[in-house]
Amino acid sequence: MFSDILQGILKETAGGIGISLMGYDGIAIEQHLEDYEAVDLQLLAVEYANVLKEVKRAVEVLETGFMEEVTVKTETFLVVVRALNEEYFVVLTLTADGNFGKARYLLMRDAPKLRDVLS
Amino acid sequence: MFSDILQGILKETAGGIGISLMGYDGIAIEQHLEDYEAVDLQLLAVEYANVLKEVKRAVEVLETGFMEEVTVKTETFLVVVRALNEEYFVVLTLTADGNFGKARYLLMRDAPKLRDVLS
Repeated sequence: MFSDILQGILKETAGGIGISLMGYDGIAIEQHLEDYEAVDLQLLAVEYANVLKEVKRAVEVLETGFMEEVTVKTETFLVVVRALNEEYFVVLTLTADGNFGKARYLLMRDAPKLRDVLS
Repeated sequence: MFSDILQGILKETAGGIGISLMGYDGIAIEQHLEDYEAVDLQLLAVEYANVLKEVKRAVEVLETGFMEEVTVKTETFLVVVRALNEEYFVVLTLTADGNFGKARYLLMRDAPKLRDVLS
Protein backbone atom coordinates (compact mmCIF):
# COMPACT_ATOMS: atom_id res chain seq x y z
CA MET A 1 0.00 0.00 0.00
CA PHE A 2 2.65 2.48 1.10
CA SER A 3 4.87 1.08 -1.58
CA ASP A 4 2.64 1.97 -4.54
CA ILE A 5 1.97 5.50 -3.36
CA LEU A 6 5.63 6.25 -2.61
CA GLN A 7 6.91 4.74 -5.84
CA GLY A 8 4.26 6.67 -7.77
CA ILE A 9 5.41 9.99 -6.31
CA LEU A 10 9.07 9.18 -6.95
CA LYS A 11 8.46 8.20 -10.56
CA GLU A 12 6.25 11.19 -11.37
CA THR A 13 8.78 13.71 -10.01
CA ALA A 14 11.49 14.70 -12.49
CA GLY A 15 14.85 14.51 -10.72
CA GLY A 16 13.50 12.37 -7.87
CA ILE A 17 16.21 10.13 -6.39
CA GLY A 18 14.73 8.82 -3.15
CA ILE A 19 11.61 8.74 -1.00
CA SER A 20 11.18 7.55 2.59
CA LEU A 21 8.23 7.19 4.93
CA MET A 22 9.75 7.76 8.35
CA GLY A 23 9.09 8.20 12.03
CA TYR A 24 10.45 11.10 14.08
CA ASP A 25 12.65 8.49 15.76
CA GLY A 26 14.63 8.30 12.49
CA ILE A 27 13.46 4.82 11.58
CA ALA A 28 12.15 4.33 8.04
CA ILE A 29 8.97 2.32 7.51
CA GLU A 30 9.47 2.14 3.76
CA GLN A 31 12.09 3.48 1.37
CA HIS A 32 12.57 3.64 -2.38
CA LEU A 33 15.86 4.77 -3.80
CA GLU A 34 16.89 5.31 -7.39
CA ASP A 35 20.29 4.05 -8.38
CA TYR A 36 22.18 7.11 -7.20
CA GLU A 37 25.57 6.88 -5.60
CA ALA A 38 26.51 10.46 -4.73
CA VAL A 39 24.88 10.45 -1.32
CA ASP A 40 23.89 8.03 1.40
CA LEU A 41 20.11 8.46 1.22
CA GLN A 42 19.61 6.44 4.37
CA LEU A 43 21.86 8.78 6.33
CA LEU A 44 20.10 11.72 4.69
CA ALA A 45 16.71 10.50 5.92
CA VAL A 46 18.01 10.08 9.47
CA GLU A 47 19.56 13.55 9.47
CA TYR A 48 16.31 15.04 8.21
CA ALA A 49 14.42 13.32 11.01
CA ASN A 50 16.58 15.36 13.41
CA VAL A 51 15.88 18.55 11.49
CA LEU A 52 12.15 17.84 11.52
CA LYS A 53 12.16 17.28 15.25
CA GLU A 54 13.73 20.72 15.70
CA VAL A 55 11.20 22.35 13.34
CA LYS A 56 8.33 20.59 15.12
CA ARG A 57 9.59 21.88 18.46
CA ALA A 58 9.87 25.44 17.10
CA VAL A 59 6.38 25.28 15.60
CA GLU A 60 4.96 24.08 18.92
CA VAL A 61 6.70 26.89 20.83
CA LEU A 62 5.39 29.45 18.34
CA GLU A 63 1.87 27.97 18.30
CA THR A 64 1.58 28.58 14.57
CA GLY A 65 -0.51 25.47 13.88
CA PHE A 66 0.31 22.02 12.52
CA MET A 67 3.63 21.79 10.63
CA GLU A 68 2.75 20.80 7.06
CA GLU A 69 5.88 21.03 4.94
CA VAL A 70 9.59 21.72 5.21
CA THR A 71 11.94 22.13 2.25
CA VAL A 72 15.72 22.38 2.17
CA LYS A 73 17.75 23.43 -0.85
CA THR A 74 21.50 22.91 -1.00
CA GLU A 75 23.93 23.20 -3.89
CA THR A 76 23.34 19.58 -4.90
CA PHE A 77 19.89 18.58 -3.56
CA LEU A 78 16.32 19.60 -2.97
CA VAL A 79 14.59 17.89 -0.08
CA VAL A 80 10.83 18.16 0.46
CA VAL A 81 9.44 16.86 3.74
CA ARG A 82 5.71 16.46 4.29
CA ALA A 83 4.44 15.84 7.83
CA LEU A 84 1.65 13.26 8.02
CA ASN A 85 0.76 13.14 11.71
CA GLU A 86 2.39 13.37 15.14
CA GLU A 87 4.58 10.36 14.42
CA TYR A 88 5.33 10.07 10.72
CA PHE A 89 6.50 12.08 7.73
CA VAL A 90 7.66 11.58 4.12
CA VAL A 91 11.03 12.77 2.78
CA LEU A 92 11.45 13.19 -0.99
CA THR A 93 14.95 13.97 -2.30
CA LEU A 94 15.55 15.47 -5.75
CA THR A 95 18.60 16.59 -7.66
CA ALA A 96 19.10 20.39 -7.56
CA ASP A 97 17.53 20.75 -11.02
CA GLY A 98 14.54 18.52 -10.13
CA ASN A 99 10.91 19.62 -10.34
CA PHE A 100 10.40 21.24 -6.95
CA GLY A 101 6.81 22.38 -7.60
CA LYS A 102 5.71 18.93 -8.74
CA ALA A 103 7.35 17.32 -5.70
CA ARG A 104 5.47 19.65 -3.35
CA TYR A 105 2.21 19.11 -5.22
CA LEU A 106 2.37 15.31 -5.29
CA LEU A 107 3.22 15.07 -1.60
CA MET A 108 0.34 17.39 -0.73
CA ARG A 109 -2.01 15.40 -2.97
CA ASP A 110 -1.05 11.99 -1.58
CA ALA A 111 -0.60 12.90 2.11
CA PRO A 112 -4.26 12.03 2.96
CA LYS A 113 -3.88 8.60 1.30
CA LEU A 114 -0.71 7.88 3.30
CA ARG A 115 -2.43 9.09 6.47
CA ASP A 116 -5.30 6.68 5.80
CA VAL A 117 -2.97 3.72 5.35
CA LEU A 118 -1.11 4.63 8.55
CA SER A 119 -4.22 4.81 10.72
CA MET B 1 21.71 49.78 3.38
CA PHE B 2 20.29 46.59 4.85
CA SER B 3 17.18 48.49 5.65
CA ASP B 4 16.25 49.42 2.06
CA ILE B 5 16.84 45.93 0.70
CA LEU B 6 14.88 44.21 3.46
CA GLN B 7 11.97 46.63 3.34
CA GLY B 8 11.87 46.30 -0.45
CA ILE B 9 11.54 42.52 -0.23
CA LEU B 10 8.85 42.76 2.46
CA LYS B 11 6.79 45.28 0.50
CA GLU B 12 7.03 43.42 -2.81
CA THR B 13 5.88 40.11 -1.30
CA ALA B 14 2.10 39.73 -1.02
CA GLY B 15 1.26 38.47 2.46
CA GLY B 16 4.67 39.43 3.88
CA ILE B 17 4.47 40.24 7.60
CA GLY B 18 8.07 40.31 8.78
CA ILE B 19 11.68 40.11 7.66
CA SER B 20 14.85 39.72 9.74
CA LEU B 21 18.54 39.66 8.97
CA MET B 22 19.96 37.39 11.65
CA GLY B 23 23.00 35.58 12.92
CA TYR B 24 23.04 31.88 13.77
CA ASP B 25 23.40 33.01 17.37
CA GLY B 26 19.75 34.15 17.20
CA ILE B 27 20.54 37.86 17.33
CA ALA B 28 18.88 40.07 14.71
CA ILE B 29 20.96 42.71 12.94
CA GLU B 30 17.91 44.35 11.39
CA GLN B 31 14.19 43.64 11.49
CA HIS B 32 11.08 45.01 9.80
CA LEU B 33 7.68 43.94 11.00
CA GLU B 34 4.26 44.74 9.62
CA ASP B 35 1.58 45.58 12.12
CA TYR B 36 0.61 41.99 12.84
CA GLU B 37 -0.34 40.81 16.27
CA ALA B 38 -1.03 37.09 15.91
CA VAL B 39 2.54 36.01 16.53
CA ASP B 40 5.66 37.20 18.26
CA LEU B 41 7.87 37.68 15.19
CA GLN B 42 10.93 38.23 17.34
CA LEU B 43 10.45 34.87 19.04
CA LEU B 44 9.79 33.34 15.64
CA ALA B 45 13.12 34.59 14.31
CA VAL B 46 14.98 33.19 17.31
CA GLU B 47 13.28 29.80 17.00
CA TYR B 48 14.14 29.68 13.30
CA ALA B 49 17.76 30.40 14.11
CA ASN B 50 17.75 27.15 16.11
CA VAL B 51 16.12 25.29 13.24
CA LEU B 52 18.69 26.67 10.81
CA LYS B 53 21.56 25.58 13.02
CA GLU B 54 20.17 22.03 12.96
CA VAL B 55 19.72 22.10 9.16
CA LYS B 56 23.24 23.49 8.72
CA ARG B 57 24.64 20.69 10.88
CA ALA B 58 22.73 18.06 8.86
CA VAL B 59 23.90 19.54 5.56
CA GLU B 60 27.51 19.48 6.78
CA VAL B 61 27.23 15.83 7.88
CA LEU B 62 25.71 14.90 4.52
CA GLU B 63 28.26 16.94 2.53
CA THR B 64 25.59 18.04 0.08
CA GLY B 65 27.05 21.50 -0.48
CA PHE B 66 26.22 24.96 0.85
CA MET B 67 22.74 25.29 2.39
CA GLU B 68 20.88 27.86 0.28
CA GLU B 69 17.26 27.92 1.38
CA VAL B 70 14.92 26.43 3.95
CA THR B 71 11.13 26.85 3.95
CA VAL B 72 8.59 25.88 6.58
CA LYS B 73 4.84 25.82 6.04
CA THR B 74 2.42 25.58 8.93
CA GLU B 75 -1.34 26.05 9.06
CA THR B 76 -0.96 29.81 9.62
CA PHE B 77 2.45 30.82 8.23
CA LEU B 78 4.98 30.39 5.49
CA VAL B 79 8.58 31.04 6.46
CA VAL B 80 11.34 31.34 3.86
CA VAL B 81 14.92 31.38 5.12
CA ARG B 82 17.81 32.26 2.84
CA ALA B 83 21.35 31.56 4.05
CA LEU B 84 23.83 34.32 3.19
CA ASN B 85 27.14 33.06 4.53
CA GLU B 86 28.58 31.06 7.43
CA GLU B 87 27.24 33.59 9.95
CA TYR B 88 24.09 35.25 8.67
CA PHE B 89 20.72 34.49 7.09
CA VAL B 90 17.41 36.25 6.25
CA VAL B 91 14.01 35.07 7.53
CA LEU B 92 10.89 36.21 5.66
CA THR B 93 7.52 35.37 7.21
CA LEU B 94 4.27 35.38 5.20
CA THR B 95 0.66 34.58 5.95
CA ALA B 96 -0.35 31.08 4.76
CA ASP B 97 -1.94 32.53 1.61
CA GLY B 98 1.09 34.74 0.84
CA ASN B 99 3.06 34.61 -2.41
CA PHE B 100 5.55 31.84 -1.68
CA GLY B 101 7.15 31.84 -5.14
CA LYS B 102 7.74 35.60 -5.09
CA ALA B 103 9.24 35.38 -1.59
CA ARG B 104 11.70 32.72 -2.74
CA TYR B 105 12.54 34.65 -5.88
CA LEU B 106 13.15 38.01 -4.19
CA LEU B 107 15.37 36.49 -1.52
CA MET B 108 17.40 34.66 -4.15
CA ARG B 109 17.67 37.85 -6.22
CA ASP B 110 18.77 40.07 -3.32
CA ALA B 111 21.02 37.60 -1.44
CA PRO B 112 24.18 38.76 -3.31
CA LYS B 113 23.40 42.41 -2.44
CA LEU B 114 22.98 41.56 1.23
CA ARG B 115 26.17 39.50 1.13
CA ASP B 116 28.03 42.49 -0.32
CA VAL B 117 26.79 44.81 2.42
CA LEU B 118 27.78 42.28 5.10
CA SER B 119 31.33 41.82 3.88
